[in-house]
Parts: sequence; C-alpha cells; structure tokens
Amino acid sequence: DGDVVTLAHGAGGEAMRTLVDDLVVPRFTDADRTAEADGAGVGLAALDDGAVHPIGDGSQAIVVTTDSHVVTPRFFPGGDIGRLAVAGTVNDLAVMGATEPLTLTCSFVLEEGTPIADVERVVESMRETAREAGAAISTGDTKVMGNGEVDGIVINTAGVAHVEADDAVTDAGLRPGDAVVVSGTMGDHGIALLAEREGFDFTGDLKSDVAPVNDLVRAAMDAGEVTAMKDPTRGGLANALNEMADKAGVGIDVVEGDIPVSGAIASAGEVLGIDPFAVANEGKVVFGVDPDDAEAVLEAIRDCPGGEEVTIVGHATEDHPGRVVVDTGFGRRYMSEPEGETLPRIC
Amino acid sequence: DGDVVTLAHGAGGEAMRTLVDDLVVPRFTDADRTAEADGAGVGLAALDDGAVHPIGDGSQAIVVTTDSHVVTPRFFPGGDIGRLAVAGTVNDLAVMGATEPLTLTCSFVLEEGTPIADVERVVESMRETAREAGAAISTGDTKVMGNGEVDGIVINTAGVAHVEADDAVTDAGLRPGDAVVVSGTMGDHGIALLAEREGFDFTGDLKSDVAPVNDLVRAAMDAGEVTAMKDPTRGGLANALNEMADKAGVGIDVVEGDIPVSGAIASAGEVLGIDPFAVANEGKVVFGVDPDDAEAVLEAIRDCPGGEEVTIVGHATEDHPGRVVVDTGFGRRYMSEPEGETLPRIC
Ligand SMILES: Nc1ncnc2c1ncn2[C@@H]1O[C@H](COP(=O)(O)OP(=O)(O)OP(=O)(O)O)[C@@H](O)[C@H]1O
Ligand SMILES: Nc1ncnc2c1ncn2[C@@H]1O[C@H](COP(=O)(O)OP(=O)(O)OP(=O)(O)O)[C@@H](O)[C@H]1O
Ligand SMILES: [Mg+2]
Ligand SMILES: [Mg+2]
Ligand SMILES: [Mg+2]
Ligand SMILES: [Mg+2]
Ligand SMILES: [Mg+2]
Ligand SMILES: [Mg+2]
Repeated sequence: DGDVVTLAHGAGGEAMRTLVDDLVVPRFTDADRTAEADGAGVGLAALDDGAVHPIGDGSQAIVVTTDSHVVTPRFFPGGDIGRLAVAGTVNDLAVMGATEPLTLTCSFVLEEGTPIADVERVVESMRETAREAGAAISTGDTKVMGNGEVDGIVINTAGVAHVEADDAVTDAGLRPGDAVVVSGTMGDHGIALLAEREGFDFTGDLKSDVAPVNDLVRAAMDAGEVTAMKDPTRGGLANALNEMADKAGVGIDVVEGDIPVSGAIASAGEVLGIDPFAVANEGKVVFGVDPDDAEAVLEAIRDCPGGEEVTIVGHATEDHPGRVVVDTGFGRRYMSEPEGETLPRIC
Repeated sequence: DGDVVTLAHGAGGEAMRTLVDDLVVPRFTDADRTAEADGAGVGLAALDDGAVHPIGDGSQAIVVTTDSHVVTPRFFPGGDIGRLAVAGTVNDLAVMGATEPLTLTCSFVLEEGTPIADVERVVESMRETAREAGAAISTGDTKVMGNGEVDGIVINTAGVAHVEADDAVTDAGLRPGDAVVVSGTMGDHGIALLAEREGFDFTGDLKSDVAPVNDLVRAAMDAGEVTAMKDPTRGGLANALNEMADKAGVGIDVVEGDIPVSGAIASAGEVLGIDPFAVANEGKVVFGVDPDDAEAVLEAIRDCPGGEEVTIVGHATEDHPGRVVVDTGFGRRYMSEPEGETLPRIC
C-alpha cells in the first residue's frame, strides 16, 4: 500500500512498536534460533533492551545490543552525540544485567563538509564516556554521505558483554508486590534538548542527564533482588512502565508526587507543553525490586553518582494487569503510552 | 583548523585510514584493554576486519565487527541494501575466521516519507540473506530523521561470533612464499552499481556479487592452512592487497592476466573509466594460503557456490616489502592504493 515512514515511527512508542512487531519480528525471529533454542536466551521477540545468547554449556551468555543516534544539535547542554552513543549502549547492556561491557563498536555516518574538529570532539567524548563506564571500543566503520544527504553526524554503537547466564535480567520480570524504583529525576534529557532547540531561555540549569549507569546497576544488583530493569529512553518513564506492566502481565501503581522531577525541568516542561514522564532520560533506570530488598537497594543506589534522588515511586499489583495507574493526589488516572512524535531527533 | 569531512574520507582508502589513525585509534586504544590485555586478542589498533576478544581462560574468543550501509539506489542489480548489510557483516566475521555468527544486530535510520513497502522488502531481504548465512538477527533499533535530513535508508549491522581463539585469522599473517588466492571475479559490485547509477545500458549482465561467504571461508579453512584473509570491499583488491602486504611486512607479486574479471565488468569498467581492481566486491575473499596447501584449498573453494572461479593470482615475497607488484604481461608496475573518492555510496 502507500504507507510511508513517519516521525512517529522513530519516537519509541506505539507506532514504532507496530512497525517492529508487524514487519521485523515475524521475519527475523524464525532465524533467531540461537537466542531461544533452549528457552534460556532472550531473543528478538522479547523486544527487550538487548538480546541474551547462551554459549557453551549454557552457564555463560553473550549479551548484545545496538542503538543509532541522530540527535541534533550534536553538542547540547550536559553532553553530546558521542557521550549519548556510548552511554546509551552501555546502559542497554546494563539493564540486561550486563554491567561489564566486553566491547563496543563505533560506526559513523558523516555528512561531507562536517568540520573535522567536530568529529574529533565527538570521538574525544566517546573516549571519556567509555572510560567512565570501563568500556572498550575495539572496532568501527566510517561512511560519508554527500552534502545534504545526511544531516551532520549519525553514530551507531553496538555493545557486547559476557555474563553468567543467571545474571541476565529482563524487562518482563515484575511480580505483584515488587517495589518500582526510579534511580533519579525524570525528563531531564528530553526537556533540556527541546528547550535548547527552541532557543528558550530558562533560569535554572536544564541539562541532559546522559551518563553511563552500569556501576549504579551493579550496586543495585549486588544489594538485593532486582526482578526487572529498563532504561527509560524514548517514550520516557510512561513508556518504560507500560512495557514492564504489559510484559509481566501485572499492573503498576505509582504516586505522581513521589516521582522525582527537578524544579527547572518541571517549569520548562510546562512552558514547552512537554510531560517529563513522556520524554527520554539518558542516565536513569527503572527497577523492579523484591519488596524485602527495596530499602537495601535504595541505599546502594543512593551512594552512586547519579543515584542521589533514587525513589520508590510505586509497586506492582495483581490489579489492572498491563496498565499503569497514577495517583495524582486528586484522583487516579491511567499513565498512557506517549505517542511522542513531537520530539524527533532527541536521541 | 578548518578541515572538513570529504567524500574521500568514506572511500576506504588513504584518506579514511588517516582519519581513523589520527583521530580515532589514539583515543580509543588506550581504553581497549580487553582485546590486547594478554596479546592474544585483535584490538582496534590492528585495523582488521573486526576485533577478537579472548574470554574465560583465553581458549575461547568473541569476534565483533560492524558496518553501516548507505548504498544508493537501495535496490540494485544483484541485491539491495539489506542483503549488503547482512552479507557485509557476516563476511567481516568470516574473514576473521568466525564462520558461524552467533548473532547480528539491525539498526535502521529511516527518512520520513520512505515507503513502508521498501522497508518491508529490505527486511525480507535481510531475513533471506541471514538464513543463507545461518545467521540470526536478535536485536535492533529504529530511528527516523525528517524529510530531507537523511537520504532514504541507512542500515547498521554489527556481528558477534563465539570461536576457539586458535581459529581467529587476521589480515596480517602473510608469509613470504604464501599463495595469494582470490575467490572469484573482481569489481562486480562497484562497477554494477556505478553502471546502474549512470543509467548506462550495457549488454551482458552486470550485477553485484553481494553474498555471504562464510561457508566458502569455512571450506577453505578446513582444507588447508589459511594464513591471512580479507574481504576486498571499499578500495577493492588493490586496497586489500596493499593492506595485507603492509601489515605483514612482505611484498606481493601478482599476475594481472590471472586475476579473474568478467568480460562484462571489464568492458563496463573501461567505458566508465573505473578499474575493477580498485572498486568494492561484496561476496569475495582474498586469502593467503600455505603453498603446500594451495591446491587443496583451491579445490575446496571451487566446490562452493560463488567459488567457481577461485584462482591463485600471485604470491607473497621477501622482496619490496609493503608493496604490491603487478606483472602486466608487458612489464611490472606497482598496484597502488586507490583514492576512490569518485565512488561515493556504493556500500
Ligand atoms: N530495526 C530493527 N530490527 C530489529 N529489531 C528492532 C529494530 N528496531 C527496534 N527493534 C527492537 O525493538 C525493541 C525496542 O527497541 P528500542 O530501540 O525502543 O529499545 P531501546 O534501545 O531500549 O530504546 P532506545 O532506542 O530509545 O534507547 C528492541 O528489542 C529492539 O531490539
Ligand atoms: N569510526 C570508527 N571507529 C573505530 N574504528 C573505526 C572507525 N572507522 C573505521 N574503523 C576501523 O578501521 C578499520 C578499517 O575499517 P573499514 O570499514 O575499512 O573495514 P571493513 O569493514 O573491513 O571495510 P568496509 O567498510 O569497506 O566493508 C577497521 O579496523 C575498523 O574497525
Ligand atoms: Mg533500553
Ligand atoms: Mg537504547
Ligand atoms: Mg567497515
Ligand atoms: Mg572487511
Ligand atoms: Mg566491512
Ligand atoms: Mg534502541
């Protein structure tokens, strides 16, 4: 038929999932023997943050993930496209339980005419972010498209980790009663980017939260039983919670007033008409945690850089399976999945 | 300074290598502990087709590679961007000695307005090519850029394999006396693409050779001692041989008349002013082979689809280290590294 790709297909919400579900999953999963051969792996059909491939006798596994980054502007308050690319891939590995990356790949698609100095600055930023995360970058690719054929710099990073198979954590493991924990303030990346792009002049510091979270995730996993994890990137907290509820077949109840949002981001969100719960975070994690371990996990995260505002925002429940219900203080409403098409190229 | 990215930086030759050598390698290698910790791995500094990471006790290793694809048109004689993306990554793993991919990743950057039917056709082609190669695709990403912000479809595929560490083969292993073998005709992909793009109407079938070569590589490795391998993609045979000579510190002597080139490609190359030895192949391999095993390896390759025209084109020598000398029948000349900037977006 005459359907075409729209910006919504890149927004991480319903439209993208439909595209992937309809077009990609049925075609790729029948060749996806490796991941799901014996039920131990996590394959494409799980639509998780990455895939888990058992190797050898199955006690070990390889975790793999990938993301392309097209953010504009390439340098923004709090980070740049290089930091985003490295942190994004480190974080998708981390939320699969793989907190020690074996290596990352680095593939550039560059527009003819891009200043070499910009490429250099981006490479330097990738190096620094990789160091921060304890990650290596060991292979890559460089392609150039003509002037006007691509806007600036596109970076793909794939990530690979080698883990004990038991360490893998999916985004589908929530159980009724589990505490739902967010590692810090919501909405920083998306709202800072949009404010920057709109040229708005807000007081306070609006900046992206982009950062590797693998150390924070390791601390959480060492402190107690983490039952599910996800990094709330495109589609934000709303998308992450809805996916976690849907995949686990549980409901999630959250208290709006308990969800950390910085004052500056909240104000900017209001002016811009953007919900901080519906836009990308790039240095945050949503955890499901065994209720008995919740306090210990909270304390461990609070001691990590970037984890100072960790909060229990709600819990999983047998009620309203697949739905996320927010207590606003005035009543209860569903937190629905964002469409998100208003925010292209923030990641 | 005021330098900018040029099309030559994407052509796989000197300009790209300088960019990677100057900007990337010094920054990324100091964090690249994993690959080269004990000298057993192949890290970024080797600038090989992929990286090799020893795991566990070092008897096993993980091979990783990545390529982005920006070819235009997206459907071309003999293949399409999806087949290119899957075969390209399978082949970079294969020439590292990793002929059984554990999994591939699939990341799309799509232009708003691209027909969904085109995306579907590309996904279908990726599925078919993956099956042909016995490869799984288990994770991916989808980003959308606005109309005019990227031209059509960009695909990144990364590939991961799990091998016995001993099986890894680099592009640096040539020894004086080794036979230099090419698995089939040279120049097909690059010249078919350019002819198609120029709208030329040649007789004969000009089509891309794009195909996975992992089975052919496996057959070769099982038949005898393969000392070095490379897939002659951007920069073609000339680039591959020069790199192999340079890295091994040996010379290479080849006989021009022995290098297989199809009649149609040779004619088209003449009309277009393109050297079949200087443009991309996407389903071919250049091997260094122990001279005692050369006949056995040749026979094994000849039995594989795509290997029918396998030929010994020359040998490595102690003379003229780092240089490739061609016997043209009328005399001898250096086969120099192509600049290649005349052929953007053929991969
Ligand atoms: N082109 C594609 N091919 C294969 N799988 C895909 C593709 N695009 C997305 N997916 C799959 O869809 C799921 C959701 O992808 P998504 O990119 O939203 O995850 P994410 O990387 O965690 O989020 P973000 O990209 O916002 O950081 C993942 O399991 C991913 O593997
Ligand atoms: N942006 C980059 N970051 C890190 N390494 C890079 C980058 N670009 C290229 N490289 C490295 O440079 C070397 C040459 O890359 P190149 O892409 O030419 O190899 P290839 O994939 O075998 O060829 P082709 O891309 O033509 O198929 C490889 O070792 C690759 O890892
Ligand atoms: Mg994720
Ligand atoms: Mg991601
Ligand atoms: Mg490459
Ligand atoms: Mg290669
Ligand atoms: Mg390649
Ligand atoms: Mg993604």
